[in-house]
Amino acid sequence: MDEFSLIDDIVNSLDAVAKTSWVSVGSGDDATVISVSKGAEVVSSIDTFTPGIHFPMTAPAKKIGYRAFMAAASDLAAMAALPRYALVALSLPKLDRDFAVDLCNGMSKAAAKCDMAICGGNLTKGPLSITVSVHGEVNAGESTLRSGAAVGDLVQVSGDLGAAAACVRSASYSIEGPLQRAYFEPRARVDLRAVLAGANAAIDVSDGCLQDLGHILKASKLGAAIESASVPVAEGAELRDALWGGDDYELLATAPVELAGFAIIGVVTTKPGLRLDGQKVTSRGYDHFRA
Amino acid sequence: MDEFSLIDDIVNSLDAVAKTSWVSVGSGDDATVISVSKGAEVVSSIDTFTPGIHFPMTAPAKKIGYRAFMAAASDLAAMAALPRYALVALSLPKLDRDFAVDLCNGMSKAAAKCDMAICGGNLTKGPLSITVSVHGEVNAGESTLRSGAAVGDLVQVSGDLGAAAACVRSASYSIEGPLQRAYFEPRARVDLRAVLAGANAAIDVSDGCLQDLGHILKASKLGAAIESASVPVAEGAELRDALWGGDDYELLATAPVELAGFAIIGVVTTKPGLRLDGQKVTSRGYDHFRA
Repeated sequence: MDEFSLIDDIVNSLDAVAKTSWVSVGSGDDATVISVSKGAEVVSSIDTFTPGIHFPMTAPAKKIGYRAFMAAASDLAAMAALPRYALVALSLPKLDRDFAVDLCNGMSKAAAKCDMAICGGNLTKGPLSITVSVHGEVNAGESTLRSGAAVGDLVQVSGDLGAAAACVRSASYSIEGPLQRAYFEPRARVDLRAVLAGANAAIDVSDGCLQDLGHILKASKLGAAIESASVPVAEGAELRDALWGGDDYELLATAPVELAGFAIIGVVTTKPGLRLDGQKVTSRGYDHFRA
Repeated sequence: MDEFSLIDDIVNSLDAVAKTSWVSVGSGDDATVISVSKGAEVVSSIDTFTPGIHFPMTAPAKKIGYRAFMAAASDLAAMAALPRYALVALSLPKLDRDFAVDLCNGMSKAAAKCDMAICGGNLTKGPLSITVSVHGEVNAGESTLRSGAAVGDLVQVSGDLGAAAACVRSASYSIEGPLQRAYFEPRARVDLRAVLAGANAAIDVSDGCLQDLGHILKASKLGAAIESASVPVAEGAELRDALWGGDDYELLATAPVELAGFAIIGVVTTKPGLRLDGQKVTSRGYDHFRA
């Protein structure tokens, strides 16, 4: 087996999701060609996933792929973008057909759930690494930015938090339970696109609820007061998982009104900084380079 | 220094090329938002560069970055796309500010030459790896595909070949000479976009002239006859470098007429397979996984 026949195997395994109406030219050329809706802007993001940092070395390839794709697509959800297509760059230590095809099957399953086409990529030799670039579209000016929060906005989250972090904390990746499912099968909340039309700012909870809220507050030059009792903590998780743990991929938004399906956890304030139950707290969640 | 302050440093070093008229939302949000010309399709490609495979471990960061960006942008050139923007995913073993900023300066210099904005990215901890996703636009249906070659088309290349491969063959990366410049400072031929309007098929010479021609022939289900005496061999390189060596990033096109600035090296035939001076040859150039 050589590089090009493995690429053929991978492309064939993706066929079902690679051929949609908006893909003019799919895999197999120098680049992919995509049609964009009239008047739309393109929304693009890129994420890399490496073993030991973003997934345990021992995880099954299919689960790694699924999680990586959803985590990447989540950035489109945070922008209120309509998901469209993705390119995948795989770095593999050796030509392991089963591993590569399983990994891509996992990605392909996640892509189908997001109604996205994986229609281009790159395969190279190197330490295991998965980079996914995701692309969607929005009507011009309608993306939800981090910088849009306004004083008095309600801070709200789209679902229970902390289950994925509780899985990471327990390091019990090999069990088949709800915490493990939360970790390996997050859902990019691309279903909330219409709801986000009512939001002033949004971000996905990848590094931790308070840290991600910190990014909104920094970009919006405002503060926030959060009530811990209002934070929806996932079953099996603790409050600390919900506040500082990452990997949930729910959406965190600020809006003048309650958004359908969201839980209100606090309010945006003029006073800078982040307050939890009236106390100043650090927003620190996950920093990839911390020891 | 933490992850986020390094990201700030990198983004600041890119400022000049990150703010162009078509970037609606640049770095610093969940995703980048880009405006697309009316009636245009989006052209996207992704490439990964790892040490030991795509560049020597000891190369200066700035050179690595420059070369990586140009090699990625070259795929847009091959599609006759107008280059627009790029996302960069960096995997770094440690938080080395100087290395990261130099690398990004190299990319940024290359991006400026291609009139592209680097306007989003990702930074993670892991073995050194650089993934660049590049994006451009074409008028609907006007991209030059690999599959468009026609019998009788003239096979032609946009410049001298083999200098980069001669550098690789000599492994003399640390000298400052023309072969090293060819290797570290390739130019993505985005300047040939208008000329390619006259081509039926195109590809960039990344894996080797004959191998890349093989991709066109496979996609077009045709053969070709090449005359070695017509192949423009770069000074300091040998014919074998020009035919089987990669990394040149010139364009290889087939067209019914001679394209301005191109040298004709052969003709597309109904007879399948590749002939060099009348002899059947293998198209084999670079396969990343070969020992």
